[in-house]
Amino acid sequence: MKVAQQSFQTIWPSQCCTFVQIIDQTQLPFAFQLLKLHKLAQMIQAIKTMQVRGAPLIGVAAAYGIALAMLEDTSDAGLANAAALLKNSRPTAVNLAWAVNRMVALLQATAPSARIKTAWREAANMATEDIAQNQQIGAHGLTLIQTQIHARQSHVVQPFNILTHCNAGWLATVDYGTALAPVYAAHDAGLNVHVWVDETRPRNQGAALTAWELAQHGVPHTVISDNAGGHLMQQGLVDMVIVGADRVTAHGDVCNKVGTYLKALAAFDNRIPFYAAVPSPTIDWAIVDGKHIEIELRDEDEVHFIQGLAADGTVQSVRLTPLESPAANPAFDVTPARLVTGVITEQGVFCPSEMVKLADILNT
Amino acid sequence: MKVAQQSFQTIWPSQCCTFVQIIDQTQLPFAFQLLKLHKLAQMIQAIKTMQVRGAPLIGVAAAYGIALAMLEDTSDAGLANAAALLKNSRPTAVNLAWAVNRMVALLQATAPSARIKTAWREAANMATEDIAQNQQIGAHGLTLIQTQIHARQSHVVQPFNILTHCNAGWLATVDYGTALAPVYAAHDAGLNVHVWVDETRPRNQGAALTAWELAQHGVPHTVISDNAGGHLMQQGLVDMVIVGADRVTAHGDVCNKVGTYLKALAAFDNRIPFYAAVPSPTIDWAIVDGKHIEIELRDEDEVHFIQGLAADGTVQSVRLTPLESPAANPAFDVTPARLVTGVITEQGVFCPSEMVKLADILNT
Repeated sequence: MKVAQQSFQTIWPSQCCTFVQIIDQTQLPFAFQLLKLHKLAQMIQAIKTMQVRGAPLIGVAAAYGIALAMLEDTSDAGLANAAALLKNSRPTAVNLAWAVNRMVALLQATAPSARIKTAWREAANMATEDIAQNQQIGAHGLTLIQTQIHARQSHVVQPFNILTHCNAGWLATVDYGTALAPVYAAHDAGLNVHVWVDETRPRNQGAALTAWELAQHGVPHTVISDNAGGHLMQQGLVDMVIVGADRVTAHGDVCNKVGTYLKALAAFDNRIPFYAAVPSPTIDWAIVDGKHIEIELRDEDEVHFIQGLAADGTVQSVRLTPLESPAANPAFDVTPARLVTGVITEQGVFCPSEMVKLADILNT
Repeated sequence: MKVAQQSFQTIWPSQCCTFVQIIDQTQLPFAFQLLKLHKLAQMIQAIKTMQVRGAPLIGVAAAYGIALAMLEDTSDAGLANAAALLKNSRPTAVNLAWAVNRMVALLQATAPSARIKTAWREAANMATEDIAQNQQIGAHGLTLIQTQIHARQSHVVQPFNILTHCNAGWLATVDYGTALAPVYAAHDAGLNVHVWVDETRPRNQGAALTAWELAQHGVPHTVISDNAGGHLMQQGLVDMVIVGADRVTAHGDVCNKVGTYLKALAAFDNRIPFYAAVPSPTIDWAIVDGKHIEIELRDEDEVHFIQGLAADGTVQSVRLTPLESPAANPAFDVTPARLVTGVITEQGVFCPSEMVKLADILNT
């Protein structure tokens, strides 16, 4: 998508396949900085510190992590070591394990002498697939939005209001995004869409990333505190909720950024459709009940401190809590399938009870 | 309650009744500053800028505002002018109008020459009544907590976990608090209580005020992002929700800090009791349906900026959002009575369907 009129993706290889470039997302929205990663350790650090984040992007980043590792050591042991390190860098993201496993399976079947070339090609394939999947998600989501707009009373002139939580935009993928792919598709199709952007404490991916990428693309949007969405729904100011997901279970439970469950409850209470938009690799067919998903507990300092632009133009971290007070920081929650209207995938839109149809499509 | 081992209230008159002292709550938790207010205009400013905040404290502050106004002008016109200015300073708080009306009724029946003395005495009476009410709320809430602890399986050793939103502690009242009065009563009775403190964006009254006052009193607590409470409830880590309220309707709808509705939905979904703790003047018997409550839209800069302690030890404001992004800031929401287990008042605990009993008690 566009950044200051120029097209970017979130991750791309150098032409000679010796390093990978990323946008340092921890610097947004106040600085647009690119980073060059030459080593596996740098990629692991980038994933851990969320310089790259978002389930689909983490998957592709991990694939490029394996490609970087092959530059250092093409042996079976080197491959196994890189795979283990990458899988441990973010425990909740199923795409990460999926991407690593795919790379490992391919490279194990490849002679060590050919592994560098194969790894870089396969990582690039995965990036291309991600983009294609997201375009399909956008197309299917656009149909949902169009249908709902057509069903409106003709006198309704307010924009079609979509609420989203966290960042599942193009910054969370290689390009286009998942939850925001339908938004970009609708906006580009000339529909009058407006996005309520949940701030998404504690890391503020909504206020920092979603708002930034929507602003860069020219999509009307308004930032709100995470507390405000329920009230807006009660007031009839939300027409649809679309979120991304770090993991969706075989029965349609949605594991996403903490706070998603609260918005799903409010959407259900106000009869507003609630969708998770994900590429199908995000679905973990091995888990039926979302209660069995391990929830990452992140550093409590993410609650104590927040980063923003100070009056002097520098980005500073300030403490929000008394020095004596502890904090807790569960990073995700699980929205039970009974609150989920549908899962928007590259294969189409499936309500939770129809997930088996999606499984059939993927298996044929 | 205690601040660094010394007893304080949030507001008190000078001995000679010529000025009022308050704790400047906008400076907490990083600085404990007292302010002297000599003029009505200063009190209005203190209410508008939330140097004093919390529905019960606003009521008493408004009463002292009238007392300060009498020092300037004891005429009927002066009284009417002061009343109008005070009522406009925060539109949502019913206690404010209630307190102003009570002062006006009394002073209209008082000769102008006696109004100064009467006004200061009545404001002090209202402060004393607030304290007594809150102690009663604490006693009734303690009974609820004790009952629930006794009903537990005997093997449960974890603390009794209470989640609260915003600040309805002693800082929101003259002393003891409303939502936190039961917590202080339980803690002081030796019960093992622990409080999950919702950060409460955008103004962070939870992280800044609730955490601070609990820490000062030695009550175990943990600050969480507003997004985390639903997940904690799903995990069985919340035993009760107690919040304050800016207004409760005749049928038990609860208007409180924005985000309360989301926690009530999650409590209901997880069969966790949800209580609003309020002194009875917070109940607006003239309104049945909470949909008719006007919701204050505050400055969007409260979403854009946040204040905290910088590395250099100064309190600084930093911007969180891109410069191009607008924000919206509804300050309250309404939790429908169907999600409310009960309203804890100084007269006892009433489920929404029993509110008429409370009305009968108050009218006899």
